[in-house]
Amino acid sequence: MISTSLKQAISRTLRRPLPVRLPIRTMSTGTTASRTDTTSRLAELRKLMAAHNVDVYIVPSEDAHQSEYIAPVDARRAYMSGFTGSAGCAVVTPTKASLSTDGRYFLQAEQELDSNWELLKQGLPDVPTWQEWVLREAEGGKNVGVDARLITAAQAKSLAEKLKNRKGGDLIGMDINLVDLVWGEKQPVRPKEPLRILGLEFAGKPFEEKLIEIRKDIEKNKGSGLIVSMLDEIAWLFNLRGNDIPYNPVFFSYAFITPAEAVLYIDEDKITEKVCEDLGDSVSIKPYNAIFDDVKAFGEVTATEEQKVLVTSSASWALTKSLGESKVSTIKAPIEAAKAVKNETEVEGMRKAHIRDGVAQIQYFAWLESVLSRGDIYDEVSAADKLEEFRKEKEHFVGLSFPTISSAGSNGAIIHYQPEKSTCARVEKDKIYLCDSGAQFLDGTTDSTRTLHYGTPTLEEKRSYTLVLKGHIAVARSVFPKGSSGFILDILARQHLWREGLDYRHGTGHGVGSFLNVHEGPIGIGTRMQYNEVPLEVGMLISNEPGYYEDGQYGIRIENVVLVTEKNTPNNFGDKKYYGFETVTMVPMCKKLTDPTMLDEDEKKWLNAYHAEVYEKTNSFLKGDEYTLAWLKRETSPI
Amino acid sequence: MISTSLKQAISRTLRRPLPVRLPIRTMSTGTTASRTDTTSRLAELRKLMAAHNVDVYIVPSEDAHQSEYIAPVDARRAYMSGFTGSAGCAVVTPTKASLSTDGRYFLQAEQELDSNWELLKQGLPDVPTWQEWVLREAEGGKNVGVDARLITAAQAKSLAEKLKNRKGGDLIGMDINLVDLVWGEKQPVRPKEPLRILGLEFAGKPFEEKLIEIRKDIEKNKGSGLIVSMLDEIAWLFNLRGNDIPYNPVFFSYAFITPAEAVLYIDEDKITEKVCEDLGDSVSIKPYNAIFDDVKAFGEVTATEEQKVLVTSSASWALTKSLGESKVSTIKAPIEAAKAVKNETEVEGMRKAHIRDGVAQIQYFAWLESVLSRGDIYDEVSAADKLEEFRKEKEHFVGLSFPTISSAGSNGAIIHYQPEKSTCARVEKDKIYLCDSGAQFLDGTTDSTRTLHYGTPTLEEKRSYTLVLKGHIAVARSVFPKGSSGFILDILARQHLWREGLDYRHGTGHGVGSFLNVHEGPIGIGTRMQYNEVPLEVGMLISNEPGYYEDGQYGIRIENVVLVTEKNTPNNFGDKKYYGFETVTMVPMCKKLTDPTMLDEDEKKWLNAYHAEVYEKTNSFLKGDEYTLAWLKRETSPI
Repeated sequence: MISTSLKQAISRTLRRPLPVRLPIRTMSTGTTASRTDTTSRLAELRKLMAAHNVDVYIVPSEDAHQSEYIAPVDARRAYMSGFTGSAGCAVVTPTKASLSTDGRYFLQAEQELDSNWELLKQGLPDVPTWQEWVLREAEGGKNVGVDARLITAAQAKSLAEKLKNRKGGDLIGMDINLVDLVWGEKQPVRPKEPLRILGLEFAGKPFEEKLIEIRKDIEKNKGSGLIVSMLDEIAWLFNLRGNDIPYNPVFFSYAFITPAEAVLYIDEDKITEKVCEDLGDSVSIKPYNAIFDDVKAFGEVTATEEQKVLVTSSASWALTKSLGESKVSTIKAPIEAAKAVKNETEVEGMRKAHIRDGVAQIQYFAWLESVLSRGDIYDEVSAADKLEEFRKEKEHFVGLSFPTISSAGSNGAIIHYQPEKSTCARVEKDKIYLCDSGAQFLDGTTDSTRTLHYGTPTLEEKRSYTLVLKGHIAVARSVFPKGSSGFILDILARQHLWREGLDYRHGTGHGVGSFLNVHEGPIGIGTRMQYNEVPLEVGMLISNEPGYYEDGQYGIRIENVVLVTEKNTPNNFGDKKYYGFETVTMVPMCKKLTDPTMLDEDEKKWLNAYHAEVYEKTNSFLKGDEYTLAWLKRETSPI
Repeated sequence: MISTSLKQAISRTLRRPLPVRLPIRTMSTGTTASRTDTTSRLAELRKLMAAHNVDVYIVPSEDAHQSEYIAPVDARRAYMSGFTGSAGCAVVTPTKASLSTDGRYFLQAEQELDSNWELLKQGLPDVPTWQEWVLREAEGGKNVGVDARLITAAQAKSLAEKLKNRKGGDLIGMDINLVDLVWGEKQPVRPKEPLRILGLEFAGKPFEEKLIEIRKDIEKNKGSGLIVSMLDEIAWLFNLRGNDIPYNPVFFSYAFITPAEAVLYIDEDKITEKVCEDLGDSVSIKPYNAIFDDVKAFGEVTATEEQKVLVTSSASWALTKSLGESKVSTIKAPIEAAKAVKNETEVEGMRKAHIRDGVAQIQYFAWLESVLSRGDIYDEVSAADKLEEFRKEKEHFVGLSFPTISSAGSNGAIIHYQPEKSTCARVEKDKIYLCDSGAQFLDGTTDSTRTLHYGTPTLEEKRSYTLVLKGHIAVARSVFPKGSSGFILDILARQHLWREGLDYRHGTGHGVGSFLNVHEGPIGIGTRMQYNEVPLEVGMLISNEPGYYEDGQYGIRIENVVLVTEKNTPNNFGDKKYYGFETVTMVPMCKKLTDPTMLDEDEKKWLNAYHAEVYEKTNSFLKGDEYTLAWLKRETSPI
């Protein structure tokens, strides 16, 4: 699933690997692209603002964990403004209200915002950012309020400083949320689903060992403890999974690790007896919100100038405020780094999950050919539903890893397209079909994109597809010395498009979790400088997804998940070790869209070898299904 | 000519594009790899140190302009220590003396240093850097002295801070040089050769226009003036050339540009009447060393907190001390940036100079084949002398742009090899011959490397050569969107070597001056992060020089100078403009070392087109020389 390089999204937090957010409406709030009357909500909010001595109130999109996807209970900005897109920030004053969002959502925001709101189109000339808008409104000593859990410490610091310079009032980090008070009983409840223990057969390493390693990191960083606030880091650390956020098997919680203790802050309802037993004496359980008082007490007693409490850049201002700013040291997330390198069990699980997932996609694409060729009518959503059915039958299936991007013709050119039942297009034999999908299995998370044509593609379509395929193969075949980053590989994916004056406006790859978030850091293939700070290590999993998008016509993306492996090169200059990739996604490329005359011998060899492997690894799952087997055989035969 | 990525060399100054320094002995001091007795020099220096209240005295390699090459008068470190290598730093205390240098020079330093000296081998475990050695010796409040003109402001600041933290004494920036006092009458004099005006037919733009543009940069940077201390920047700015430093047509000087004035600080002996006339009223001339008093006076009167005096990172501590640290603002060098983009006249001159230079190399390589095949004996130096003869005959020839790296067999694997008459190897028919050479012409500076074999190369040699050639062609053929840097292109040059587990330990490209220094910033192709900060622009000239070195066996490098041009791509996605390269070097590649079965169709097409162009552009210069013409025809015929 694609990553974006939109600057607006990046700016929020540097450590977040992928700022892609999918429209919240598809997950939860039930709103559609229609206008919500926000007049009375705003009136109530303004009353509360006055009561709390707040002149300017910020309503961020984020939850308290800077999660990429949020739960319905946290969709405060959507509730308040009526705008349901995934990215944006709302700001309210006694007389004005503004909503800032990026280019993906200009149209949707115009359709959804009522006349109470001013739309701030990010990136357009002379349009202020939401921060600039806040600064303007706060001039003359006006106080600015924000729920301190919903912005990071760095964001708060930066804004507070600017307020000071621009003669604004104070930035007040509040421990109540005014939108929650307005929302009242109608606000969805925070999920309380019980946790699931991820057995060693899937996790590969006992959480006690992980704790030992993290404590070594704490020592190395001279910390008195580490506050963990990212939900996927907590899930990984304790070998637990939850169901609190759509598509991401995580649960609302914090963790605080010290040399002597490990405390998991979580709603007790989620802790089954089995989980309690599993965690044993190594981990104490405390209520979710108790973290704030606990770190405050800890900071007062323990942390010294030399031994600070460690946090990562995603820690909320509420956490660092509780602890005391002078006692905080912000470090590169050690759990994120450890989690990115999969152990052997996880690697083997990812391979197997991708084979089963590949079988589901093979069944789907073969089925789609049959129904389209006999003239049956399917739209983008009903087709995607069928794909989900095939996936559901597979062993260890838990759910989707993100909403399927099932897009026909020109919809494929909308990079963050998501079909809606009421408005989506029909899948047509004579139009390119782009399908970006993935699933959560107990043994791994999948994510792949195939672009197909079931009729007769144009020469231009074939040319574009083959240019993208050449870039995909260049990354897949690349060999690079240990220590190289994904940053330097990006050009391999784009070189053939560039030669024709073509390009794509998104990154080439993102880290993938192991039965965890489909997007995870810190690695990536792309032009963001932070990707150059993290070398690729054996055991890391990353997507390889170049694309090309012809606006109003079609979209092409070819995405596999690949594993970093050591390559047995004929030499080993400088005793460096040389790395490369093993492709774990097992779905045929589209033969019809491939122009073999544009491939060189090495590229053909790679493609034929890949197809042979796809056939070999998936065909046994299709025994008895002669139709699909024949399709698979045809699609994987050598060119 | 090759750039190095040795960390030691890089660390000195970030803006310097290429830290390659060639052994000073080949330029000037006349010392050979024999030991100099430094006992009496050291005794005199120590007396002077005591008289000036200095406990630890630093003797840097650099001149006052942080030049890549230095004049004999500035070879103080070589004089003092006896070590004549190009890189290193000497430090003297009342009882000890240390010399720090990098891995290229360990052997030479061991041979040249007498027993007064301790050799600090940079980069080896537990060996202190010269800075660490200074800190250790200065503990307990000992004063450290250095000629403030010879280190940059940033280096001085960093060292002074560390001295403070480590309880050392003060860092004293001296305005006299103690080594000069020891050297006395035997010190070579500072060159006084007259300047040469570079006519508009070569410079392409009147210096008055350049001054207008630089003044705009000063205004944009809110400066009250700009101090220019890099010699090539001054030469470029005023369309003047000198002869003060071997291989670099520059002259000792400073410039100080304000909105109202332009002052050139230079020894008056160098200013001919014609130069005086040419500069007219736009430029005042003052004595070389008057800059220090002038900027001091200027700083006292003019510069305010808002309007500082601009310097670049290469400005010496002596300059910023004179000005007053609080009045200095360090900016990215605007003249370096302007100079990197050649105007049309310069581009056309570079093309023409490279054709004439190519003819000289063609004559040389053809001649070398004939003499080797009839069994004549030539060593690396006498062969290079013949190459210089061919060059000297060419129009507009001024001199070499660096000492020719003429290396046979295993000497080619020593990346910074320089043959010496007394010790150099014979050029042999059956060994790979690597020749990296270049010249200064009035209309351009050339730099290219060819690797040849006049007998029967081994399969391995052909394989290595062809891998390097593939990388060279990949860079030459590359197309990239406007805004791309040389940093991202580096992998194109290395990808084929990496696949075999091979690599080379130097950068892939450096900027090239126009009848100026053969190495110039700020651009480069390589892994240094600063290369990623400067996009390649149309009109820039850069070398393309991948290599491979098999220690003890042979060295391979294929270097052309290429020009950044706009490419007429079939599409122009995102209205970005797409750029690529035009190769200006005109010398055939080595057919004998090329394995055509390793080249794909596009690579063969590029090679054949290049060879056709080389033939077309050079053959008319060879009229009547049937032997060379036949050689050229053979070497440029299609594969």
